[in-house]
Amino acid sequence: MRIKAVVAYDGTDYHGFQRQAPDFEPTIQGQLEVALKRIEQAGTVWGAGRTDSGVHATGQVVAFDVNWSHGLIDLQRALNARLPSDIAVLDLEQAADSFHPRFDALSREYRYRSYTTAVRQPLWDRYEWHVPQALDAVSMNRAAAQLIGEHDFAAFGQPTAGESTVRNMLRAEVAASDVHISIDLQASGFLYRMVRRIVGTLVQVGRGEMDEVKFAEILAAADPDRAGPTAPANGLCFTRVNYR
Amino acid sequence: MRIKAVVAYDGTDYHGFQRQAPDFEPTIQGQLEVALKRIEQAGTVWGAGRTDSGVHATGQVVAFDVNWSHGLIDLQRALNARLPSDIAVLDLEQAADSFHPRFDALSREYRYRSYTTAVRQPLWDRYEWHVPQALDAVSMNRAAAQLIGEHDFAAFGQPTAGESTVRNMLRAEVAASDVHISIDLQASGFLYRMVRRIVGTLVQVGRGEMDEVKFAEILAAADPDRAGPTAPANGLCFTRVNYR
Repeated sequence: MRIKAVVAYDGTDYHGFQRQAPDFEPTIQGQLEVALKRIEQAGTVWGAGRTDSGVHATGQVVAFDVNWSHGLIDLQRALNARLPSDIAVLDLEQAADSFHPRFDALSREYRYRSYTTAVRQPLWDRYEWHVPQALDAVSMNRAAAQLIGEHDFAAFGQPTAGESTVRNMLRAEVAASDVHISIDLQASGFLYRMVRRIVGTLVQVGRGEMDEVKFAEILAAADPDRAGPTAPANGLCFTRVNYR
Repeated sequence: MRIKAVVAYDGTDYHGFQRQAPDFEPTIQGQLEVALKRIEQAGTVWGAGRTDSGVHATGQVVAFDVNWSHGLIDLQRALNARLPSDIAVLDLEQAADSFHPRFDALSREYRYRSYTTAVRQPLWDRYEWHVPQALDAVSMNRAAAQLIGEHDFAAFGQPTAGESTVRNMLRAEVAASDVHISIDLQASGFLYRMVRRIVGTLVQVGRGEMDEVKFAEILAAADPDRAGPTAPANGLCFTRVNYR
């Protein structure tokens, strides 16, 4: 039977989700497949999104096939007991035999976290980008709102293959809480490095180096040379995948 | 001149605050002294509390002597540039020549964090203890309140030398927020492993394995054989030192 599972991981020590050449660098997909093999269920684990090296997840969705006569809670326990401590299966259920976590996804959600104290904070650095100056979250939020709707996002990312760079952005919100700033994005799909490039550009808006009009122009021009830098991986978390 | 500094660290990769035999295991004190040496200010760094292996801090206070003709902001920057990324000087000021962070401290504060979801959460595990069942935080808070005042805390910890086991507990609060439970303790001083042993015993109360009356009896009997287990280091954070 086919299993759909929600997986969380601390991506710090992994070279992204996608398995690489055998015995090369540790990946999330590779670790999940090793755990499956350890319960004698060798096979491929498909993911909803190929998170990059160092990117975290609390809502990655994966699928795999198993022959399992015990309960699903037992399957989840067996996998969690065999996974490294920085990866966990949070939820697990039977899915339709045709279910594919990537092709069936209607939208994906990412959260990017940053903090803005002058001095770096060792206990926040693992999951938040340290931006050592105050940011104008209100301007950032107004700029981000312009991303909503169907756009060519070529300014902020590349397609993984030769496909289209048009995506539908459903949500783009910037919220400040004390010295923490979170950026939530939900879209039909994301191009390679798109979230981090959007964040890097929004931080330029937050610093007053760019205004909302210029931000809209960069989006409309679909010109990657004018967008801001790519924000670091450690602040990014893949939080949710939505299905029908 | 003597400097008083507030230091934060992620203790995961350190064998506690206190320097060990040269070139043995990495310690916070050792790293701070290496950073000082790199700015040609070799000397001893004294700490307010000797946190254990794996314990974190956001408010450790240290002191050291320097000859420094530039501003204090420059001194802080120079140290932070030379410290590893999991240690930072959050604040720094000149102190009286006689200032000693440990002997002059009036009280110390620790926060212990835990979470109670059935499945472990990789993004919380570094700074919170995973207790995989619901805890009754109200009972835990009532039990903890009995710690307040001057008591012989021999049930929960050992003195580092042959001194007294009497301490004055100023605050002991257990608070729940969603699946997270935090335990805040403030006392004149803490015995070796005292916070973690109190937490381990309070969690027994939270599980319903012990009631408040028995908790009070264990405290009064000063008998370490009846207290609960020592909670793991990763949930503990040294948050503040108070001076006159």
